[in-house]
Amino acid sequence: MNKIEHIGIAVSNLEEAIKTWETLLSTPCYKREAVESEKVDTAFFQTGESKVELLGATSEQSVIHSFIEKRGQGLHHVAFEVDDIRAEMQRLREAGFRLLQEEPKRGADNKLIAFVHPKNSTGVLMELCQSMPESE
Amino acid sequence: MNKIEHIGIAVSNLEEAIKTWETLLSTPCYKREAVESEKVDTAFFQTGESKVELLGATSEQSVIHSFIEKRGQGLHHVAFEVDDIRAEMQRLREAGFRLLQEEPKRGADNKLIAFVHPKNSTGVLMELCQSMPESE
Repeated sequence: MNKIEHIGIAVSNLEEAIKTWETLLSTPCYKREAVESEKVDTAFFQTGESKVELLGATSEQSVIHSFIEKRGQGLHHVAFEVDDIRAEMQRLREAGFRLLQEEPKRGADNKLIAFVHPKNSTGVLMELCQSMPESE
Repeated sequence: MNKIEHIGIAVSNLEEAIKTWETLLSTPCYKREAVESEKVDTAFFQTGESKVELLGATSEQSVIHSFIEKRGQGLHHVAFEVDDIRAEMQRLREAGFRLLQEEPKRGADNKLIAFVHPKNSTGVLMELCQSMPESE
């Protein structure tokens, strides 16, 4: 793991949350992106070498909607940058961790991503992410 | 806010959690520290310019114990490094955020710290932290 690539925060109202985090971090939201497959809208802020990603559900079928129903708004996941996501997935599987995907999938921000099941990682939903090579 | 200084993770069993995170991050725990005032033991890992801080309660009176009782293990807070914590606290108060402390207090890792109430920050318990000047 090279660094914290981003922290993901589940929010009820993305427009209001963007204003809140612009004030908290004293920095503007620099990108917004819809991730249709996850039924979320996202908004990004840069802080040092890491990002804050706000996640707003666009449907009641979104996992972000379910998360907020169950636990309320707040910290949802932490993502770590890796050079070779398939190698890291294999390493973690062999160490006994359960991955939520067999193969990496496309996430926001032009990344290949995969999640580690929180049950084996002290309740933390951990994302691995690798910048997408041009060919993929 | 300069960067994510650390993410704080509430864990039930610190010894087991250290092993888990050493494997997850492929890096050894580089420091352990008891914070008597908070009734927690902490363990730190470096990842890029940020840290992962594990927090284990040493008493049922610890806020970490209460957090786990209510929500289970997992992401507890995110800390941002600031140059001047008192100035940032004042800035956030004037913007309508509620701080959990009137004055910064001493935290782990030789920092002055203060927390923003999660109610106004989309459910996120946000810590401000400033490296302690020699004179304080």
